[in-house]
Amino acid sequence: MANKVEQATHMVGGAGETSYATNSRTQEKAINRTRPILETAIAEMYGTLLPERMVVVDLGCSSGPNTFLVVSEVLGIVGDLCRRLEQKPPEIQFFLNDLPGNDFNNVFRSLERYEKKMEEEKGDLLAPHYVVGVPGSFYGRLFPCNTVHFFHSNFCLMWLSQVPQGLESEHGVPLNKGNIYIAENSPPKVVKAYQEQHRRDFSTFLKSRYVELSIGGGMVLTFLGRRNKHPANGELSYLHGLLAEALKAMVSQGIISEDKVVTFNLPIYGASIQEVTAVIHDEGLFDLEQAQTFEYNWDPFDDTDDDSVFDNVLSGRNVAKCIRAVYESLIAHHFGDAILDELFSRYAEKVARHLLKEKTKYTVLAIALKKKA
Amino acid sequence: MANKVEQATHMVGGAGETSYATNSRTQEKAINRTRPILETAIAEMYGTLLPERMVVVDLGCSSGPNTFLVVSEVLGIVGDLCRRLEQKPPEIQFFLNDLPGNDFNNVFRSLERYEKKMEEEKGDLLAPHYVVGVPGSFYGRLFPCNTVHFFHSNFCLMWLSQVPQGLESEHGVPLNKGNIYIAENSPPKVVKAYQEQHRRDFSTFLKSRYVELSIGGGMVLTFLGRRNKHPANGELSYLHGLLAEALKAMVSQGIISEDKVVTFNLPIYGASIQEVTAVIHDEGLFDLEQAQTFEYNWDPFDDTDDDSVFDNVLSGRNVAKCIRAVYESLIAHHFGDAILDELFSRYAEKVARHLLKEKTKYTVLAIALKKKA
Repeated sequence: MANKVEQATHMVGGAGETSYATNSRTQEKAINRTRPILETAIAEMYGTLLPERMVVVDLGCSSGPNTFLVVSEVLGIVGDLCRRLEQKPPEIQFFLNDLPGNDFNNVFRSLERYEKKMEEEKGDLLAPHYVVGVPGSFYGRLFPCNTVHFFHSNFCLMWLSQVPQGLESEHGVPLNKGNIYIAENSPPKVVKAYQEQHRRDFSTFLKSRYVELSIGGGMVLTFLGRRNKHPANGELSYLHGLLAEALKAMVSQGIISEDKVVTFNLPIYGASIQEVTAVIHDEGLFDLEQAQTFEYNWDPFDDTDDDSVFDNVLSGRNVAKCIRAVYESLIAHHFGDAILDELFSRYAEKVARHLLKEKTKYTVLAIALKKKA
Repeated sequence: MANKVEQATHMVGGAGETSYATNSRTQEKAINRTRPILETAIAEMYGTLLPERMVVVDLGCSSGPNTFLVVSEVLGIVGDLCRRLEQKPPEIQFFLNDLPGNDFNNVFRSLERYEKKMEEEKGDLLAPHYVVGVPGSFYGRLFPCNTVHFFHSNFCLMWLSQVPQGLESEHGVPLNKGNIYIAENSPPKVVKAYQEQHRRDFSTFLKSRYVELSIGGGMVLTFLGRRNKHPANGELSYLHGLLAEALKAMVSQGIISEDKVVTFNLPIYGASIQEVTAVIHDEGLFDLEQAQTFEYNWDPFDDTDDDSVFDNVLSGRNVAKCIRAVYESLIAHHFGDAILDELFSRYAEKVARHLLKEKTKYTVLAIALKKKA
């Protein structure tokens, strides 16, 4: 049952261009929103170390319109800092990391175009920089000790390294029947299994990054989480609950076999800021410099702040496209790809209906950590 | 007319598995043959610096059976050294470089299999190591200053960064008509254009590597060259001369247009050891620690040392497969891929006939360089 992270998360990039573009909008908005956190964290690290050469890592770079966004951001921030401090800009080595299944060919072949564009826009203002690719799971070691100045990760740490173990009874009976994530009717054992998997994974993550970071190094991590205390009250529970409903409707019409749905659970967890800070505190390796929570409408194209949905059918479709980009490979791997169109068309409808009742949001957590001396 | 390196050399990996396997055998033999040079160079660098973390780069890693060979070699050499010196093995970061057109997805996806195999074979004897990918041309900067301990390159430096300029007269008339490389009847201007392109490229290469290497760092470079003083007497001239003959035969039968052949010149150069050492001397950046010349039979499966060819038809076919793996994309890009089967079947025949007259060999140059203090 344990679904390795490899199968689970290399599809974050999503399928068609359209899907990706929809999905990537939320990520782009998050990067814009967390820019002040990134600026402060990089300024602190750079000001302390004044490195001649800087190593910056993006964990979960994916392969799409946002892949080089962190490169641009960091180059911009460091460029401004150097002008202000009247320092010669450092050489920056960017390591773009994702699972080996990520389309690095596309990343590398887009790089030249990206560099040309940057050159035209910024010219001499650009710090000398070099981009390389790092295949592998960030729930493990990726770099030699003390070699990284700064880690960045955007919209990746909600992925678990695997589907939690313990979602079945001792006799192998699935405990989370009818759900694909933590739901209101999930038994406590299921909730605990998810929570423990998250705690283990995040703890491994922190330990790995700690040894890889230079003294004075830091990181900024942005990921989906939840606002409420209980996991079943999280916004991701609603989002995944509607997907489970769409699957179950297809079971009742004989399109999918029930067994398939019963053994399907998502390797994802929307943590609360309390859970995240508890792990950071228990590990004792990092100082939590900043922690913020943002909310985004489910529909990435809805930029309004109020609680009214202008076009619930269109928003339903946008959400479905976005969620499809994220889960398509995972679902196709488990159910076959024949069900995809039908599933997400049903899902779009369910989301549209849900939005009439309540304009649910994503909760995004952004934290800045500094390696303890 | 200038063919950018991007188009020219990313096909070194070759086409089908068979082609690659044939082609890769010569490379594998070269790595075995140059192992003592590699051992001495790494021992010298490691003994001087005793680095806790070592950065090793393979320039032109390709994507095939030999891609991880340098990783294994270096891990083995460093492991032996550390046991002998009773040192804790360093963490090694391997950077595998090739042009952005290289199939890095395949490299990264094969990595897990490779690591598993290494783990089974060597277990605890293995130094901790990390493999990343670097897209870009080695005729330019790829790394920040002073960050690399050791560069390795196998069978890549005979590629020029582009088809030499100056292969046409001032009025645009092609000067190397009937040839695709330097031949006995190539005018001196053509020879000079090739020589100057090689000198410029190799000089840029040395300058780039010099700034990237740490103090005490070094490199081992193996590439195709020639034994004779005059470029037209090089073994590559015979090899390419036969390919030109096959092309011309297809012109005379109306299969290829003459214009196409007239404008086709290979972006490759087989340098003599004198030419190579002259550039090294003129740049004054490196000490030449070792220089050796090897010979290999054109047929990679012919391991005999004498001058007799056992089965010239079979050897002709092997050579054709090998050369096809190297030049296929380049030829397809210029002539279209419809001509490939016919061209290389004719080529195999011409090579078979040639081998009856003379068992020509490849000349391979292997040099070890150390960054001057």
